[in-house]
Amino acid sequence: MMKSQSKMEKKPRARDLGIPFDGTNGPLNAITDVQGIEVGHTTLISGNGKLVVGKGPVRTGVTAIFPLGKKSADPVFAGWHSLNGNGEMTGTTWLEESGFLEGPIMLTNTHSVGIVRDSIIEWQTKHHMGGELWSLPVVAETWDGFLNDINGFHVKKSHVFAALDKAISGPVMEGNVGGGTGMICFEFKGGIGTASRKVQIHKENYVVGVMVQTNFGRRQQLRIAGAPVGAEILEHTIKPKGTSSIIVVVATNAPLLPHQLKRVARRASLGLGRVGSIASNYSGDIFIAFSTMNLKATKSPSVVDVTMLSNNELDPLFEATVQATEEAIVNALIAAETMTGRDGNKVIAIPYDRLKQVLKKYKRLAEATNSS
Amino acid sequence: MMKSQSKMEKKPRARDLGIPFDGTNGPLNAITDVQGIEVGHTTLISGNGKLVVGKGPVRTGVTAIFPLGKKSADPVFAGWHSLNGNGEMTGTTWLEESGFLEGPIMLTNTHSVGIVRDSIIEWQTKHHMGGELWSLPVVAETWDGFLNDINGFHVKKSHVFAALDKAISGPVMEGNVGGGTGMICFEFKGGIGTASRKVQIHKENYVVGVMVQTNFGRRQQLRIAGAPVGAEILEHTIKPKGTSSIIVVVATNAPLLPHQLKRVARRASLGLGRVGSIASNYSGDIFIAFSTMNLKATKSPSVVDVTMLSNNELDPLFEATVQATEEAIVNALIAAETMTGRDGNKVIAIPYDRLKQVLKKYKRLAEATNSS
Amino acid sequence: MMKSQSKMEKKPRARDLGIPFDGTNGPLNAITDVQGIEVGHTTLISGNGKLVVGKGPVRTGVTAIFPLGKKSADPVFAGWHSLNGNGEMTGTTWLEESGFLEGPIMLTNTHSVGIVRDSIIEWQTKHHMGGELWSLPVVAETWDGFLNDINGFHVKKSHVFAALDKAISGPVMEGNVGGGTGMICFEFKGGIGTASRKVQIHKENYVVGVMVQTNFGRRQQLRIAGAPVGAEILEHTIKPKGTSSIIVVVATNAPLLPHQLKRVARRASLGLGRVGSIASNYSGDIFIAFSTMNLKATKSPSVVDVTMLSNNELDPLFEATVQATEEAIVNALIAAETMTGRDGNKVIAIPYDRLKQVLKKYKRLAEATNSS
Amino acid sequence: MMKSQSKMEKKPRARDLGIPFDGTNGPLNAITDVQGIEVGHTTLISGNGKLVVGKGPVRTGVTAIFPLGKKSADPVFAGWHSLNGNGEMTGTTWLEESGFLEGPIMLTNTHSVGIVRDSIIEWQTKHHMGGELWSLPVVAETWDGFLNDINGFHVKKSHVFAALDKAISGPVMEGNVGGGTGMICFEFKGGIGTASRKVQIHKENYVVGVMVQTNFGRRQQLRIAGAPVGAEILEHTIKPKGTSSIIVVVATNAPLLPHQLKRVARRASLGLGRVGSIASNYSGDIFIAFSTMNLKATKSPSVVDVTMLSNNELDPLFEATVQATEEAIVNALIAAETMTGRDGNKVIAIPYDRLKQVLKKYKRLAEATNSS
Repeated sequence: MMKSQSKMEKKPRARDLGIPFDGTNGPLNAITDVQGIEVGHTTLISGNGKLVVGKGPVRTGVTAIFPLGKKSADPVFAGWHSLNGNGEMTGTTWLEESGFLEGPIMLTNTHSVGIVRDSIIEWQTKHHMGGELWSLPVVAETWDGFLNDINGFHVKKSHVFAALDKAISGPVMEGNVGGGTGMICFEFKGGIGTASRKVQIHKENYVVGVMVQTNFGRRQQLRIAGAPVGAEILEHTIKPKGTSSIIVVVATNAPLLPHQLKRVARRASLGLGRVGSIASNYSGDIFIAFSTMNLKATKSPSVVDVTMLSNNELDPLFEATVQATEEAIVNALIAAETMTGRDGNKVIAIPYDRLKQVLKKYKRLAEATNSS
Repeated sequence: MMKSQSKMEKKPRARDLGIPFDGTNGPLNAITDVQGIEVGHTTLISGNGKLVVGKGPVRTGVTAIFPLGKKSADPVFAGWHSLNGNGEMTGTTWLEESGFLEGPIMLTNTHSVGIVRDSIIEWQTKHHMGGELWSLPVVAETWDGFLNDINGFHVKKSHVFAALDKAISGPVMEGNVGGGTGMICFEFKGGIGTASRKVQIHKENYVVGVMVQTNFGRRQQLRIAGAPVGAEILEHTIKPKGTSSIIVVVATNAPLLPHQLKRVARRASLGLGRVGSIASNYSGDIFIAFSTMNLKATKSPSVVDVTMLSNNELDPLFEATVQATEEAIVNALIAAETMTGRDGNKVIAIPYDRLKQVLKKYKRLAEATNSS
Repeated sequence: MMKSQSKMEKKPRARDLGIPFDGTNGPLNAITDVQGIEVGHTTLISGNGKLVVGKGPVRTGVTAIFPLGKKSADPVFAGWHSLNGNGEMTGTTWLEESGFLEGPIMLTNTHSVGIVRDSIIEWQTKHHMGGELWSLPVVAETWDGFLNDINGFHVKKSHVFAALDKAISGPVMEGNVGGGTGMICFEFKGGIGTASRKVQIHKENYVVGVMVQTNFGRRQQLRIAGAPVGAEILEHTIKPKGTSSIIVVVATNAPLLPHQLKRVARRASLGLGRVGSIASNYSGDIFIAFSTMNLKATKSPSVVDVTMLSNNELDPLFEATVQATEEAIVNALIAAETMTGRDGNKVIAIPYDRLKQVLKKYKRLAEATNSS
Repeated sequence: MMKSQSKMEKKPRARDLGIPFDGTNGPLNAITDVQGIEVGHTTLISGNGKLVVGKGPVRTGVTAIFPLGKKSADPVFAGWHSLNGNGEMTGTTWLEESGFLEGPIMLTNTHSVGIVRDSIIEWQTKHHMGGELWSLPVVAETWDGFLNDINGFHVKKSHVFAALDKAISGPVMEGNVGGGTGMICFEFKGGIGTASRKVQIHKENYVVGVMVQTNFGRRQQLRIAGAPVGAEILEHTIKPKGTSSIIVVVATNAPLLPHQLKRVARRASLGLGRVGSIASNYSGDIFIAFSTMNLKATKSPSVVDVTMLSNNELDPLFEATVQATEEAIVNALIAAETMTGRDGNKVIAIPYDRLKQVLKKYKRLAEATNSS
């Protein structure tokens, strides 16, 4: 019942439908455009019909993001920000203090954060990837209880290990996969989304990659490419009890220090602003940013050389973060497919035809471009 | 030299031009829709031609916002947030610690923050409005050095007193007034803007009022009502050296506690996201929110009764904050007039005809509505 | 092998030995002097000799603190602070955002935070104590890998349930119990400690109770009652690889708002200063404070009445927090007993005779007083 | 009227009296042991008798600290922390965002922060030391209204310029000088104090220097070298209405990044804990730390090389900060002289004989050592 990650159907992405975005994306238009990053998903879909706690139906999963790939235990500089903290991201206290992210980031459902956290430590000690002494893993979540038997605790250690072990570079599966499996976004089906931007600063080329697990927003609020899409597509809205949230992971190969990465993380707020978010009280809108440079920073016993992009040069990276966050959210919506879960609860995918209709009305339907 | 506040020409506001906004504004569509608030401006415009430091030309001023009117020294609950801290807002350390705003908020140019701060204390002690023992005033700024002789320190104590003394309720002057006199926004003339929203929560009516001093943004980034206005009106762009910034003041009569007001302040970020901000490294994007309720909170010697709106009911206020921030920024752009300042530097007002053209193209030009 | 909590031997506490402290303690000199608080420990001690990961030896446990007792799911106002964040306290992002602590606080070892967190949710849903929709539990940790098979993950769901189910009011076990079982403090055996202070503010009586899980400090740094105790008792020092930490839980029945409780939490730093802490890079010094008043704050659908102690009256509570933190740390040292754990690693209890000798030398040995 | 800085009487310092401290001080036992730092004071003492606002008596001043000397406009990495924010330190929002301190730090009285701030900008533009475009100076304060005509605004631009112009390396005047002129500490006369520590990390030598402006504490709370000095010297206590505060400036030549300097700043809390502080509600306990290394960090247009001390090596610097903060506070007490100010208000210097008596009683009087 664990859907294979290799079964990567060719689905359109937002740009394929003609949705216009600012900026220039990388070759994969994905977080993996930042070299070294590996992503793995375990997707858990089983059962139908009435909820029996512990039995299902199951619509959940877990996603792993390795900043430097699963073979590296090197820490990377990182920062985080909470736009609205109705959620959990473990490990942030140490990340804030030390300036380092010391392992993978994992995404799952709200009630499986603990098992994922401890399983990372076990995986790390088993593979001698840190954790032998101690580890403070970073695990974030959004809530999938409208579709998933969230109190059945269906994510197990083996699922966590699988997501870690299978993490790969290259194209990233989006939509109903991994931690995003049972998620809802603007009352459409949501889930995992990703995007990237290329920027040039004084002749140096950098990439910003973003991955989101989307589970937020009221229909009426949705704006795509500036058009009031949500207000125009009001059919099949739902009112799930429970929280809505979005986790944003921003990666870059630009040499940023921890305090600069905190600034980058904060820019995800502006990408959310563009799609119409109000950062609801019920939403865990939590962002993390890391840089894959400066890997020597913890290696030496004492003083190490690091490089730093001047504050004066950060604007292109800030802009790229805003743009890629916006696009990653829309990509999640476009990739996600209609899903029926517990108690027959059904969440529809955003209907492409209606979406294109609205965008056309507002002169926001571009010629389709190929993003990958 | 000091432009009279009473000379309030009837200029159109954003809604008058047919720009559509979400939500329902209050009668004045201004921060003063929150009862008790009084606003005063001192506008300093003099001289022309080449900059002679200390002589001018002068294009600056100072704006005062009294949460409870100039006759009250009562503190109000407050919170603040910095989206990008390339700016100054004095008094925030105590505001964060105590949860209280203990006097007016004043807005001015970057290099006049000090004189304004100390002058508030003198005004307070003179009028027995706090400060006899000690005072930690809240003064924020944006940078007007492209048009103004900012190193001439033209804001004097008398100008500060005038803005305080003349503060009134009712309609608020916008555009090239007070602290906003010499400001630039998306490479158009910017300045002061305001807007409000009415919300109903369990049959109780509340108001959210926003006032902004806008001095941020690159032309290309500007979005109005979701339409890519900046990308379509590329004439007369400028490249001022120096910082760009926006101060956002959010007021409400909803009974919010300090930590809730911090949450409200943070929502201004999403309003900035809507108009296209990337929160540039050079921008001091600093927000403050206060509630005019709970005035007994510091009165009693010991335990006081306060009221608190449940966290679960905050979404309408969050949405109102996002919407009113967006509209206040656009109102600032609409109200500001073309200005020529030091060394002949000229910044054009956003051209109404071109703007309406663009909005029409993107089907975002509504029937004009009367906002006041 | 789970040591019964009822087997409460009569051990001396710091005051019984004649160590002088400032302030007036409550009847139990424990966090449970704040009415309603219940504490439960599960202590896991088994095996001896060489470490076999997964087999033991086991020297660990878990401790539960219910702000309002295990029968109440009501949230309480809370705040937190990290003096040095080399540690984990889950749930803090929502606590900071909402101002509420919505369940028990649990303490355990670093690598068992996850199982404890998810088990709380399961316990809550089982008992209809919150969590049916979602829950973001607060679990903190310190590292016991010098004595305990920490990578054996010996804390199980049943142990978590036991600590929750057995939580009681009344005297609190200290030393080698619960989450404190395998902890080390100033290279002496550490663990759980507690203390309280009574304060009167305008004729109202309040209590401040503190509980600590101590696992920090180098011997040389230890000061007790101002005397350089560590520098004088240099025998049997150890150099554990791994982190050292202290979790401080501050409780009060004074009606404080969330931002005020954050201030209280921050005062634990000063208690640590008194005993000689430098807040080592390796230390997770994380503090949480809550108030048992204002229980209506989340009950009503909309506007609720809460009470607030004036900022001007907080000093006695701040002082009580500093004093009780200092004493709780010393109580942990006094209560803890010599322990031998994995690989024969041995940590001695602070020797009473030597301690009294030193205190006497520095004129800091008072007549013994009875603290309970 | 302005006391000459050169008139440096040979007064004993804390170590000269035999007060024992941990750690090894630098040659000057002053912040100026960190190479490049220059300090300047302007001391304003005039008038006697009854307060006439605007006339005096005057007991105030201003102190300047240049991280790299007054000839350098180079920014330095910096961080800050507020233990209790009942005070002002301007410029912290940009310091937090950028990671840089971009000019001198100045200390003055609460109501003169503004004039000092704007005067720094004028001085900077005049000397082409930054500020031509914009500047966000760092100015902190404590309250001297018990002795000084604080609402007379006696600090003028010329006094600010004088402190800046006269800043020098070498020994630092302590006690009733500069910003510390009218300050009170534990109800004894307080003011400026300084101390330093030498640390060796992997054969590299570093210095930590601390300067404080002390104005905090109730007599009863004072602990020196762990002895309850305040509780033993209860004569001549006072109850000033108004705030009490302490500003701590920590400097080092160790190559620390901004987020590490924030950690260093936070350690000042532990130094305060050692002398008995409870961080009163009325106290502005605000700390700033900077590193004089990494001066290239803002020079290049794009990517710059910086060096970073590993987090794992920070403990000696943390310990040095705690120790030097403790000693700088005691040095301020020892250096300050009895002062009579407005309305005949009198604050006594800590009496050396009584102090030595108490220390001797508690076996904490060492052989006098020479600190400079």
